[in-house]
Amino acid sequence: MKYPNSNKTYQHTATKNTSRRGMSLENDINQSCLYYLDEGLCNIHKKPTPVTIVNVDYPSRNKAKITEAYFKVPSTTDYNGIYKGKYIDFEAKECQSQTAFPFNSIHPHQIKHLSDVLRHGAIAFIIIRMVYYETDYLIRAEDFLDFYNSASRRSLPYEWIKNNGHIIEYKYLIPCDFLKTIDEIYFRSSIK
Amino acid sequence: MKYPNSNKTYQHTATKNTSRRGMSLENDINQSCLYYLDEGLCNIHKKPTPVTIVNVDYPSRNKAKITEAYFKVPSTTDYNGIYKGKYIDFEAKECQSQTAFPFNSIHPHQIKHLSDVLRHGAIAFIIIRMVYYETDYLIRAEDFLDFYNSASRRSLPYEWIKNNGHIIEYKYLIPCDFLKTIDEIYFRSSIK
Repeated sequence: MKYPNSNKTYQHTATKNTSRRGMSLENDINQSCLYYLDEGLCNIHKKPTPVTIVNVDYPSRNKAKITEAYFKVPSTTDYNGIYKGKYIDFEAKECQSQTAFPFNSIHPHQIKHLSDVLRHGAIAFIIIRMVYYETDYLIRAEDFLDFYNSASRRSLPYEWIKNNGHIIEYKYLIPCDFLKTIDEIYFRSSIK
Repeated sequence: MKYPNSNKTYQHTATKNTSRRGMSLENDINQSCLYYLDEGLCNIHKKPTPVTIVNVDYPSRNKAKITEAYFKVPSTTDYNGIYKGKYIDFEAKECQSQTAFPFNSIHPHQIKHLSDVLRHGAIAFIIIRMVYYETDYLIRAEDFLDFYNSASRRSLPYEWIKNNGHIIEYKYLIPCDFLKTIDEIYFRSSIK
């Protein structure tokens, strides 16, 4: 998702070699969610991009055209839903840097949100795609917040991500198979 | 929320007498969610209105203006979140009729969605504001779906709503206090 008002740049995955991964992380997660939904494994959706609608035209009886609207800063994470009776909540980010994931990639109220849902008993995490390494990591919100709240630096070093993150597998039909990773971390069993 | 492409009409609450209720159900629920959030009771949000963005202008460096977009039919319900470790999911509708709530007020995929999250272990329901009677009802998705799947008629009779629905109290700071009703139905304890 693009928030043009923010100071971040999102780019599509610049694949190192002729890779399986030509799509954005968002596309890969959406496709995975759709697969999970069709298979009845979980019900997780991306929230729509929040916009403030200022003006709507009705050129014909059945078609409303929004002619003026603005992007809003999101107050929650992008994805949530339910899996095995548990509330799931996460944010997904691509990281272009080879060395660290900058904290300013995530809005402060999204971090507050992750902390809050965690307190209510959610399974909460961040998915970070390290574009250069072509690897997706699931970072538990608990681990992320520990580092975030104690570190003096304002980014997550790649070494820390490698040591504390959990690799998410790519599959043809499930390009970001985070449910398998959730099973390994939170349920200690695996789905087929 | 208004979906101009649909065949429904949403109106603001037409209060019978000089009532406490001048606002729409959506406003009342949003205000209640905000109160709950501030008090740390739960984390439930309205999802943004889904729109398809076709064209964006960048008149200045920092301001993106959406100049062409269209409303999309929502694929999920409007509200979800977490309360006491449980995934919460619901749709909210105002009903202008005195006699029945028409099923075509809810999109078929929203009904499918309620059924699906229920299967995954959610607390799922519909909030119906009977505008004429100035009363909000919480209808458990289980009860709604039972009737929906078995009835020959295509609406929920007011008598059925009175007998099977659970009244949601109005409070000054919590104009649609559905959390209290959830406690009574699903947790059998009450919050203060």
